[in-house]
Amino acid sequence: MESYTRPQKQINPFPRNVQVPEHLKPRGTSGTKLLEIERSKASFSSHDMAVYIRGQETLDRQARLLDVIENEEAFDKSRLAYLGRTEKFNYGLRKEKRFVQLSQEKEWTQADMQMAEELIDLPAGFGLHKSMFLETLRSQTTEEQKKLFLEPALKFEIIGCYAQTELGHGSNVQGLETTATYDPETKEFIMHSPSLTASKWWAGGLGRTADHAVVMANLITQGKRRGIIPFLVPIRDPVTRKPLPGRIIGDIGPKIGYNSTDNGMMLLDNVRIPHVNMLARFSQVDPDTGNYIKPKKAQLSYGTMTFIRANIVKNAFVVIARAATVAVRYCAVRRQFTDRDAPQMDERAPAESQVLNYAMVQYRLFPVLVTALAFHFTGRQMYRDYEQNQANLAKGDMSLLAEIHASSCGLKSYATITAAEAIETCRRACAGHGFSSASGLGSQYCDFLPQVTWEGDSYMITQQCARHLFKVFRMIWFQEKGHDTEETVTTDYIRKYIKNVDAKCAVKYSGDFHNPQMLVDAFGHRAAYLIGTAVRKRDIEKRTWNSILVELYRVSMAHSQFLAVKNFADAIVNDEELAANPALHNILQSCFELFACYTMEQNASEFLSSGYLNSKQHELLRNKIDELLASMRPQAVPLVDAFAIPDYLLNSALGRYDGDVYPALVDFASREPLNAIDFNIDVRDDSSVVMNVPMAVSLGLAGDRPNSKL
Amino acid sequence: MESYTRPQKQINPFPRNVQVPEHLKPRGTSGTKLLEIERSKASFSSHDMAVYIRGQETLDRQARLLDVIENEEAFDKSRLAYLGRTEKFNYGLRKEKRFVQLSQEKEWTQADMQMAEELIDLPAGFGLHKSMFLETLRSQTTEEQKKLFLEPALKFEIIGCYAQTELGHGSNVQGLETTATYDPETKEFIMHSPSLTASKWWAGGLGRTADHAVVMANLITQGKRRGIIPFLVPIRDPVTRKPLPGRIIGDIGPKIGYNSTDNGMMLLDNVRIPHVNMLARFSQVDPDTGNYIKPKKAQLSYGTMTFIRANIVKNAFVVIARAATVAVRYCAVRRQFTDRDAPQMDERAPAESQVLNYAMVQYRLFPVLVTALAFHFTGRQMYRDYEQNQANLAKGDMSLLAEIHASSCGLKSYATITAAEAIETCRRACAGHGFSSASGLGSQYCDFLPQVTWEGDSYMITQQCARHLFKVFRMIWFQEKGHDTEETVTTDYIRKYIKNVDAKCAVKYSGDFHNPQMLVDAFGHRAAYLIGTAVRKRDIEKRTWNSILVELYRVSMAHSQFLAVKNFADAIVNDEELAANPALHNILQSCFELFACYTMEQNASEFLSSGYLNSKQHELLRNKIDELLASMRPQAVPLVDAFAIPDYLLNSALGRYDGDVYPALVDFASREPLNAIDFNIDVRDDSSVVMNVPMAVSLGLAGDRPNSKL
Repeated sequence: MESYTRPQKQINPFPRNVQVPEHLKPRGTSGTKLLEIERSKASFSSHDMAVYIRGQETLDRQARLLDVIENEEAFDKSRLAYLGRTEKFNYGLRKEKRFVQLSQEKEWTQADMQMAEELIDLPAGFGLHKSMFLETLRSQTTEEQKKLFLEPALKFEIIGCYAQTELGHGSNVQGLETTATYDPETKEFIMHSPSLTASKWWAGGLGRTADHAVVMANLITQGKRRGIIPFLVPIRDPVTRKPLPGRIIGDIGPKIGYNSTDNGMMLLDNVRIPHVNMLARFSQVDPDTGNYIKPKKAQLSYGTMTFIRANIVKNAFVVIARAATVAVRYCAVRRQFTDRDAPQMDERAPAESQVLNYAMVQYRLFPVLVTALAFHFTGRQMYRDYEQNQANLAKGDMSLLAEIHASSCGLKSYATITAAEAIETCRRACAGHGFSSASGLGSQYCDFLPQVTWEGDSYMITQQCARHLFKVFRMIWFQEKGHDTEETVTTDYIRKYIKNVDAKCAVKYSGDFHNPQMLVDAFGHRAAYLIGTAVRKRDIEKRTWNSILVELYRVSMAHSQFLAVKNFADAIVNDEELAANPALHNILQSCFELFACYTMEQNASEFLSSGYLNSKQHELLRNKIDELLASMRPQAVPLVDAFAIPDYLLNSALGRYDGDVYPALVDFASREPLNAIDFNIDVRDDSSVVMNVPMAVSLGLAGDRPNSKL
Repeated sequence: MESYTRPQKQINPFPRNVQVPEHLKPRGTSGTKLLEIERSKASFSSHDMAVYIRGQETLDRQARLLDVIENEEAFDKSRLAYLGRTEKFNYGLRKEKRFVQLSQEKEWTQADMQMAEELIDLPAGFGLHKSMFLETLRSQTTEEQKKLFLEPALKFEIIGCYAQTELGHGSNVQGLETTATYDPETKEFIMHSPSLTASKWWAGGLGRTADHAVVMANLITQGKRRGIIPFLVPIRDPVTRKPLPGRIIGDIGPKIGYNSTDNGMMLLDNVRIPHVNMLARFSQVDPDTGNYIKPKKAQLSYGTMTFIRANIVKNAFVVIARAATVAVRYCAVRRQFTDRDAPQMDERAPAESQVLNYAMVQYRLFPVLVTALAFHFTGRQMYRDYEQNQANLAKGDMSLLAEIHASSCGLKSYATITAAEAIETCRRACAGHGFSSASGLGSQYCDFLPQVTWEGDSYMITQQCARHLFKVFRMIWFQEKGHDTEETVTTDYIRKYIKNVDAKCAVKYSGDFHNPQMLVDAFGHRAAYLIGTAVRKRDIEKRTWNSILVELYRVSMAHSQFLAVKNFADAIVNDEELAANPALHNILQSCFELFACYTMEQNASEFLSSGYLNSKQHELLRNKIDELLASMRPQAVPLVDAFAIPDYLLNSALGRYDGDVYPALVDFASREPLNAIDFNIDVRDDSSVVMNVPMAVSLGLAGDRPNSKL
């Protein structure tokens, strides 16, 4: 059996507190049968598609890891939804430990670990140790420091976190208040938080877990500020677990999601650390004189950032695919109302229609499904660009850097905002049961939300994309008077636009919204039109930068959507692997058309306003979308199957591969610990004390605690 | 001091587990000072505006109730964010009991109780008893049944719930499976769940609280199905609290929000109830023969539904106003980055700009703020329409019914989808701290979400609005050949459109987007254009109803937005109270313009496609919005103050009236119970057991439990 068709295991679920007779089954055709029928209508092989999209290597890795992970009690998800904050944190910590043991035992590679984390999907106390802490110790240290700090960290003998953001200071690193003042007499740095807003804040793992922190602080030597530098600060006694003197540390309290992680705060009161604890690969302080030695060249962190953002876009594919899988399957199982126009066989108990048959549901879900694919192809291209750029940089060639950095900013913004919306769209399409934690979509949404804000706030970071596009636009404009510039997809669409600003869409029938190049050109024209408009406002109308921020956001979105359409189109037109499988090619052509047409329709005012699209064509576009939705209806379940998201990751009663939704919802309900308690509801009795139950149960814990390792 | 300017009390918060020195203050100008400066720039009196919008009576009631509520430990909100499911449910139950006691003691009116519930904002076990259960016992019972059931229910001697929805059946009442078969021999009804999907599901209070349930079931007498009828079914032993024989009952488990409520499930296994337990005001069953006596006339439930939906729209005002208050105040306190174009006084520590100064933040928040106002005026008009209609119905005049029902469906959809999005927009505008539970916005969002689904799924209910608009459109079309129809705002805009389908917007300068009637006409033209297009697809192209559901959704949205613009415009143009206060009129005129222009811009493709707006005007529209945002910047804080939402309801460290945000965030963090526990993080130690702490603390509960009533 494929790894993504197996039902989710439950290793140590809470006991059933409600006993439902076994003989009761759902009425009518079972969910399992309904999904079988859906799958029988596939016009292509879901397995072939899974191999094409995810790659055989990834599918093999997934199967191999699931065999291990699904059999580990520490990674079991069946209790998660019922846990309070402290229990959830503890559950997360237990997972972290087992993860370390297992990764050593099984000799997991970096790729294995990354996928295992994605599948287990439980952010916890070691998260920042394994990413930013180790990364900083790798990239910012001298050889001596690697021995001192990196080696024990790699063995988890010390656990670290990464403390940059402060209570009053978010993305703006230059606004940080924490100081590190060098004292040449004792050869120590004095780490200090001069105010309340200087408190380190949000750092994952800082709250309860870490014993060391990388602290970003203003280096001060010889009375002068030298810039923001990383320092390694011991923060907790590894034995007593109490904060060391001068450190005030705590978890920052419950959040909308991520409650299995201890995001923390820390105030430093003139804490002294040795000279060697300033991470000194790029900048140094002379121990005797306190002389500051500047970094030889600006750190090329753009490369790493583009890599992180490629990860975010690729992750957006998994995120959206997961939500779409749940919603599409459940809407194929769920039936509601009868079709107004359909004849009824049995007047007494008319057969209700599968919810997925309703055009409004299709209109909400299928664009989400195809957007997942667009981000898949875009993420893939971003990795290729990243690798090309790294190779170039190794040769001293920086010609791609600005373009890749700009596009990665725009795509990060576009992908995260779109993915968050997609999860919520899918959740609402599941109607009432979408609101239950059994859907798996609520926690997915809540845990995803930080991505919209971190690694560059998705509403503000668009400025970086637009700034580059401004430059390119101006350069091409001048080039016609003799300048020169690097050729990229961006220069290409801007050139086309400048050559023919009054270009018109040639569509005469809805069927004309078909040719990939035509759709790519349309998005290029619209992006260039918006860039040109915004440049005019800045350069000719002399508007302030601040007053055109909304324009810049639109420019960045238009550019990013162009890239997504372009990357998807490239696969359709140029991918030989795809061309060799006509069934796949055919359905992906439809998915591409829906993605491009839906995205165009959502932004139609800009295509209309530029004069590219006319009213008649706008109506044809809407008709085309209706046609595509209807034609994709029978392929929806096979398509989400092809995402190959295993039940273990879905963790959803609604999205199960086998469609056995209703018994799963009943099982979920029956295990609610609240059901073990009887409450006193007499309004004359002043206290709400619990009746008839032992205290342990009344405190929000299931009756089987003695057997639990929690 | 006004009730809405007082800081929130904390009666029994968890103890501080992290001690932060008192002398540490936020850097720079304090939040309190920043908000004072904001308030000093007001072009109008926030108090006058509060009186105008909320009404003096409402403000007085709020002050009177807050004096009581804020001093009740059972209504204290300071612990809520830290509680697990069971504790939260118990907290809710305690609130319910105290609420009943207090409402009797203080002789609260219906209006008092409604507002008190809104302020306490903790949905719990008695919620459905107080609404649907009592309402059903009032409206569906005989006099005998009122004595038997309603009287003890009013005294809370029995606690009920309302069980309609089933596991496999949501909004479609006709799809319910539960049967009530009459047995004339014993004069009993046999209540039965024939399958698993027949399980009652979602009913609030059913899970752990209620001892009685109104069960909607298929009445079967003499072997025939007679329709869906309400039955009163005893479900739990009031003393032992155990389910009575044949009832399988439980809480359905954790949800995304509403976890203080015990939404429940129930399966009935041939449960016999006496003849008198069928609620028999409209239909009866002859006890001896089992003859079924049909209701004399169809129940006029449309009236009640329009009232419920007017409540939802009015509630959308409070919901959006609350979120906007938090975000606007926090964005006035928070500073980040320096303005690119601004000169810097101190190069070493440049003054960061208030986040509210960024145009992108304004573009996200100010439209939310003015949309709250639009729903205020619209909710007010819906109540007026409802009362007019009730008066008409009493005279046998049903002429308004269809119009009011249709508009209430459309507005319910529009208001709930918009309000949900508004909360999330505000949360994201608070960036990182918006993700903390201390923001108050996450729980607000999660608790609001069910409104999008219940009382008619907001994506599907739009069909009811559109169906009526189709009828009106067709009637007017035919009337020109001799028919007649009732005159309403709808006929008015459709007539105008039909007279001049090629009407053009007359705007030449951005300043022309000013005249309320012009903006109302624009929205009327667009709505009628969409109705006409959809009618053509159905009537001429003979499209199936299902295939045009997306069009119907658009039609309903366009009509509802027309109503919102119209109701707001009516206040600006016709309200004498407003005209008498030029300062208020002036700012509300700007708010109206922003609401109308922003809503038009968000839907610009439809205004462009109809040919009403041209490209040049579209650009002017965008410029106009930029101008309005800049001009409203200094009025933003005074405007949210005017919503008069008290800190107690905001329950937000970020939204406090006094702007003292950072100490509040630190206080919130310091009380996290997790901070009382030290964890063993040694990866070689297999269990994640807790170190150094008593067991009670390790279970997610604060150390001060002995003093707590929880």
